[in-house]
Amino acid sequence: MSGELQFHTSHGHYWASYSVENRRPDLAGFAVSSTSVYVCLLEGSTGATPSEEMNGTGNLMDFLDEPFPDVGTYEDFHTIDWLREKSRDTDRHRKITTKSKESYWELIKSLLDAWSGWVVMLLIGMLTGTLAGVIDLAVDWMTDLKEGVCLSALYYSREQCCWTSNETTFEDRDKCPQWQKWAELMTGHSEGAGAYVLNYFLYVLWALLFSFLAVSLVRVFAPYACGSGIPEIKTILSGFIIRGYLGKWTLLIKTVTLVLAVSSGLSLGKEGPLVHVACCCGNLFCSLFSKYSKNEGKRREVLSAAAAAGVSVAFGAPIGGVLFSLEEVSYYFPLKTLWRSFFAALVAAFTLRAINPFGNSRLVLFYVEYHTPWYMAELVPFILLGVFGGLWGALFIRGNIAWCRRRKTTLLGKYPVLEVIVITGITAVLAFPNPYTRRSTSELISELFNDCGALESSQLCDYVNNPNMSRPVDDIPDRPAGPGVYSALWQLALALIFKIVITIFTFGMKIPSGLFIPSMAVGAIAGRIVGIAVEQMAYHHHDWIIFKNWCRPGADCVTPGLYAMVGAAACLGGVTRMTVSLVVIMFELTGGLEYIVPLMAAAVTSKWVADAFGKEGIYESHIQLNGYPYLDVRDEFTHRTLATDVMRPRRSEPPLAVLTQDSTTVEDVETLIKDTDYNGFPVVVSRESERLIGFVQRRELTVAIKTARQKQDGVVSSSVVYFTEDNPQVAEACDPQPLKLRRILNLSPFTVTDHTPMETVVDIFRKLGLRQCLVTRSGRLLGIITKKDVLRHMAQMMNQDPESIMFN
Amino acid sequence: MSGELQFHTSHGHYWASYSVENRRPDLAGFAVSSTSVYVCLLEGSTGATPSEEMNGTGNLMDFLDEPFPDVGTYEDFHTIDWLREKSRDTDRHRKITTKSKESYWELIKSLLDAWSGWVVMLLIGMLTGTLAGVIDLAVDWMTDLKEGVCLSALYYSREQCCWTSNETTFEDRDKCPQWQKWAELMTGHSEGAGAYVLNYFLYVLWALLFSFLAVSLVRVFAPYACGSGIPEIKTILSGFIIRGYLGKWTLLIKTVTLVLAVSSGLSLGKEGPLVHVACCCGNLFCSLFSKYSKNEGKRREVLSAAAAAGVSVAFGAPIGGVLFSLEEVSYYFPLKTLWRSFFAALVAAFTLRAINPFGNSRLVLFYVEYHTPWYMAELVPFILLGVFGGLWGALFIRGNIAWCRRRKTTLLGKYPVLEVIVITGITAVLAFPNPYTRRSTSELISELFNDCGALESSQLCDYVNNPNMSRPVDDIPDRPAGPGVYSALWQLALALIFKIVITIFTFGMKIPSGLFIPSMAVGAIAGRIVGIAVEQMAYHHHDWIIFKNWCRPGADCVTPGLYAMVGAAACLGGVTRMTVSLVVIMFELTGGLEYIVPLMAAAVTSKWVADAFGKEGIYESHIQLNGYPYLDVRDEFTHRTLATDVMRPRRSEPPLAVLTQDSTTVEDVETLIKDTDYNGFPVVVSRESERLIGFVQRRELTVAIKTARQKQDGVVSSSVVYFTEDNPQVAEACDPQPLKLRRILNLSPFTVTDHTPMETVVDIFRKLGLRQCLVTRSGRLLGIITKKDVLRHMAQMMNQDPESIMFN
Repeated sequence: MSGELQFHTSHGHYWASYSVENRRPDLAGFAVSSTSVYVCLLEGSTGATPSEEMNGTGNLMDFLDEPFPDVGTYEDFHTIDWLREKSRDTDRHRKITTKSKESYWELIKSLLDAWSGWVVMLLIGMLTGTLAGVIDLAVDWMTDLKEGVCLSALYYSREQCCWTSNETTFEDRDKCPQWQKWAELMTGHSEGAGAYVLNYFLYVLWALLFSFLAVSLVRVFAPYACGSGIPEIKTILSGFIIRGYLGKWTLLIKTVTLVLAVSSGLSLGKEGPLVHVACCCGNLFCSLFSKYSKNEGKRREVLSAAAAAGVSVAFGAPIGGVLFSLEEVSYYFPLKTLWRSFFAALVAAFTLRAINPFGNSRLVLFYVEYHTPWYMAELVPFILLGVFGGLWGALFIRGNIAWCRRRKTTLLGKYPVLEVIVITGITAVLAFPNPYTRRSTSELISELFNDCGALESSQLCDYVNNPNMSRPVDDIPDRPAGPGVYSALWQLALALIFKIVITIFTFGMKIPSGLFIPSMAVGAIAGRIVGIAVEQMAYHHHDWIIFKNWCRPGADCVTPGLYAMVGAAACLGGVTRMTVSLVVIMFELTGGLEYIVPLMAAAVTSKWVADAFGKEGIYESHIQLNGYPYLDVRDEFTHRTLATDVMRPRRSEPPLAVLTQDSTTVEDVETLIKDTDYNGFPVVVSRESERLIGFVQRRELTVAIKTARQKQDGVVSSSVVYFTEDNPQVAEACDPQPLKLRRILNLSPFTVTDHTPMETVVDIFRKLGLRQCLVTRSGRLLGIITKKDVLRHMAQMMNQDPESIMFN
Repeated sequence: MSGELQFHTSHGHYWASYSVENRRPDLAGFAVSSTSVYVCLLEGSTGATPSEEMNGTGNLMDFLDEPFPDVGTYEDFHTIDWLREKSRDTDRHRKITTKSKESYWELIKSLLDAWSGWVVMLLIGMLTGTLAGVIDLAVDWMTDLKEGVCLSALYYSREQCCWTSNETTFEDRDKCPQWQKWAELMTGHSEGAGAYVLNYFLYVLWALLFSFLAVSLVRVFAPYACGSGIPEIKTILSGFIIRGYLGKWTLLIKTVTLVLAVSSGLSLGKEGPLVHVACCCGNLFCSLFSKYSKNEGKRREVLSAAAAAGVSVAFGAPIGGVLFSLEEVSYYFPLKTLWRSFFAALVAAFTLRAINPFGNSRLVLFYVEYHTPWYMAELVPFILLGVFGGLWGALFIRGNIAWCRRRKTTLLGKYPVLEVIVITGITAVLAFPNPYTRRSTSELISELFNDCGALESSQLCDYVNNPNMSRPVDDIPDRPAGPGVYSALWQLALALIFKIVITIFTFGMKIPSGLFIPSMAVGAIAGRIVGIAVEQMAYHHHDWIIFKNWCRPGADCVTPGLYAMVGAAACLGGVTRMTVSLVVIMFELTGGLEYIVPLMAAAVTSKWVADAFGKEGIYESHIQLNGYPYLDVRDEFTHRTLATDVMRPRRSEPPLAVLTQDSTTVEDVETLIKDTDYNGFPVVVSRESERLIGFVQRRELTVAIKTARQKQDGVVSSSVVYFTEDNPQVAEACDPQPLKLRRILNLSPFTVTDHTPMETVVDIFRKLGLRQCLVTRSGRLLGIITKKDVLRHMAQMMNQDPESIMFN
């Protein structure tokens, strides 16, 4: 397999291998399956040999033997038909409108139905905001727990602990007697080698404990809770069904393990998983309203909005969240969803603000305020940061994908817990000695983003002050760096290398892990280093031609914090390839249009550089790695193939399995259902003319025949199945009762001619969200193209040399 | 006609009536046509009786007689086929990729081609920003010219004039000796009744002069330059061709007349027309690159981005601009366009900032900064403002549409110049006595939005100061209103009524006119009045239960400026029905997330209230009034009709005009082309079997036969036209040479079955941008559905009682 797209030769249940292993993956996946690589969806269809994956038919039948859910829902790991969902919703809507004229009660019910969308958004926003607030508080507390404890109240984080301390004066504000490090608490000594070693040891121990708990909880209770979840959510939003992926268990376990994973100090963030958590909330509230729970298309509209709410609380950026959902995650995003997403994102952001986890009544994760504008000449380092971001993005994606592939194909994948423990151990051991990696990544980013005010005590702000400067003011001129800055630079450089390497191995482990924060950290460190370098150059060499025009001595020209922010945007852009939503998120963080040009320049450069190494962002790469049936809207299909080159059956294959409108018996149909595993069958006038009448779904056919055999007298194996409009003429009395099935026949199947360019076919599949499409020539049925065929064809074309296609 | 959708019974050139009157409407429309109502597109298909409109066939033939543009382009007032445009672009792209491997020169050319999109965006951004800057400067100067002149430099506006004045001290800052009012300059007296009357007279005179110039320029040089242009741009972006609407003349004249119209003091804004100007720029630069000029689909991507740039400079809100383009204007908005729009919007905004027309290096039109937060209890007045905004929106749309309809059907429409003169006269006469209407509307809005600082000299800030308050600080507590505030309130109330009435009559006249600014003005006035009322209530009755919890005496609780902003958002939302982009624009103006909840609450309330009176915003209403073939993405089609109910021919009509694949002669084809005016003809196997083979375009058929008759020997009237793949067997030597036309046959026409629900058909037309769709049943061709048929059907369904459809 080794990470390439793998397709079954049969239509229909392309995802059968999942069905075997993960019948109830949210509960017992790990326990049941011996090959644990199956468990995390992100780890996809692996390990199993192709022959193992082929035998899906039996499993599908297992499914069919189960008590039947109502006709019209989909099976697990199947693709939905958007057009059908839409038309079902219209029917429902029509019914309600008709009824609403009958009585006041029905009118009220119809109004409630119309408003339910907004109610769902309100609930999603409130729950997402609350969860995000709780997660923030818990992470703060547990991260600090690795280093020490608050004596006045055990459940206080260091910051909260020292807030309440009255003894904190301006000089003492970094010390705080209520807060004690472990060594101090245990031995009474806060200084010395012994205390350092003890603190070190306990730091690593707590980290191992947290990560072990996290991975165990994921393994035992909710295997779907691992990873960032965004690749899967993209796939689900594009119309794929993964039962339990957005379930209650996943929600609960992901929330808990996210706290543990982030607190363990691993190089991962909470932003991606928060989107998953928000989508779980969305799914949860969908089940309250039949409008959403019974329609997979409508449900996906809610989930799109939920994703926006997730990003909104992750960064405190509601508009950025909506744009992220639009640009990165969603597949079908009508205007109505835009409004609702915006509403949900706002509600979530304000719920979070009401909880106020950062204690500063700021909405945003990293609030910054700069006092100096930027100058045109600074665009050069900004663009260089963009190049760095692009290179980092390309390196990260290649490295991470290669590692994930190795995890799938080697023994490594069999020991997920051990892997997590080892990586946590390495991370904790390496992180502790360096003050910039010891603290939580978001604190680090926050410090790097911030401009050095007069009151800053950080090492990074250890500048040599001009003795003439009487009192601290906002507008501090550029100053020469002191020894603290230089040692900080070394530590930052080491932290940069450490973060770059460890993040590649961390993302994709079996714990919740986002990569927004680690990516931003890499960029922020690089940016801050560049920023300080430029600042010092400008101070020491302000007569150089490049500085002369805009930086007079004694002026505050360069803001290193801004460089950190630009670097963070560049690195995030390189990894995810989002541009607009990224810039908007950053813009919401700074709250000013002033810095939009540096951010945009860096984001666009980074996207271009990274695109030169490979068109796909990390999420698309993981989708491809796992072989999800995702039809990317952004991929342009420019090959010259025709529908006839893609449709099944191929020339060498047996003819298409079809039903005729008035000459198939019940037995024939049952044999056909048993022998094949297609999703449905075209119905033609007769085998000779092959003129297409309609399409009948496998599920509906099975149910109809089953019901008829049970309830309808005279229907036996030799009964003829009629799909015609007219009543069949029963020629002789001894003939068995015919079975009329026109009502389950879809009379408007989607057709294209065999000469239709595949480009158009791909477009139709994307825009209309089709599951399959029939191919005809002058009205004669020739074959069928399924979404899977389209995806396989696109993958084939991508791998081939473009020239060979063009000239053959 | 009276404003209802009017459709020709013939397919094909639904817009023939335009072709007659406006062959080159940007140059001579007014001069040629005696019925001047035709000239402004916004005035649509009017005046002419249906029979006049019917005789389009002859004109189409005229077109065909002209030297032929290359096959594949579209005729004026026709709809483009998005799928075909896309596939043409793919072909072009493929050709370039293939060539690029041949030589370095071709490789460079291919790279240039790939980058041309960004280059076009850069150029559009720069030109749009420059034009916006020039317009701003010119409007400032000419608006002030109505009142007086700068003696130190005639080309200075009042603000610029007084900047340069050194004598301006803090006390004198409202006086400025270099700036003289007309009366002062002419008579030497600046006070007194005589001076007032003279100033009054000259104010009205200048206003009349400006508006006369504006309407005359529009009439003579560019009739398309009138109106806001947004309804037409929406229609164009949805795939309609209006030649010259985005031409160079329109660009030039619209820019000039926009300055004149705004300066004349009419109740109109420059925002909508700026979008039109930006789109003209986009079209202009498209012509530099064959990639865009030769592909109508690609051109529309550029135009979408240009629209974003237009809003970006109109408000200084780049993100809002992109969202406006996405939410309100665009039809097809792929992600690539999102990025490019953002880039164009940014470039435009920064070009404008470089020009710095407002002299404060602020990007935004109305920069505001508030010092107090808002309180939950204030949501009540905010929501009331939302209700007001919704009512205003509904009233404005009804009133304006009724007036526009009257203009079309009565004599009024024949005297556009007189109408403009009269309205300008009334506006100027009524506006001068009231200081709030005398100044330009954007200055008024700016003053209403602003919080009363300590240095504010405006009448609106005439509060009774507490004598104990020693020196001006930012955080001024609520104070009792002084006499100035009360007189200002009266004047504002009068201004409100005046603006409401006059705007209804102004929008839609034959000069460039936007309605963002007038709508915002109405809302801002109402909001400010409410704000002051709440403020005074809170001051005088801070013991009332509603104020008790949040407003202590001596605190600064209520910011009337915020109410003005919320009111402006509500009114704009009521008229245009946009929500997200509106909130984002407002958010960019204030630059803080703090006020997003009040804005959102008002915008959503106003949308709901206005929607209760009619689902359509002003732009959609004008599109419907003018009968443009616009398939709104937002309209939901929920009726139960089938394709068979909509397709032509109906039961009573003659059968569909079809060609057979091997039995039609050249003469038959020519007769068919002459007798019908369809856009194209389906080709079937034979008249008996009616199995569909393909579709042939009328244009291509005409050209092919013409060319064949001229250049190919032996093709005569009795030659048989073959569409088959195999070479026709010429049975007898004396038979005329056959004409093989398979190469012009579209082998993949779009088909649906007759049982397809119209809901699905509408969806397909929208999403795939089809022009027509063939209807089949079991492979037999039954009829055709064109975009026009779909639109007519939707209009019919809308007008019918929903119940009657549901139960028939």
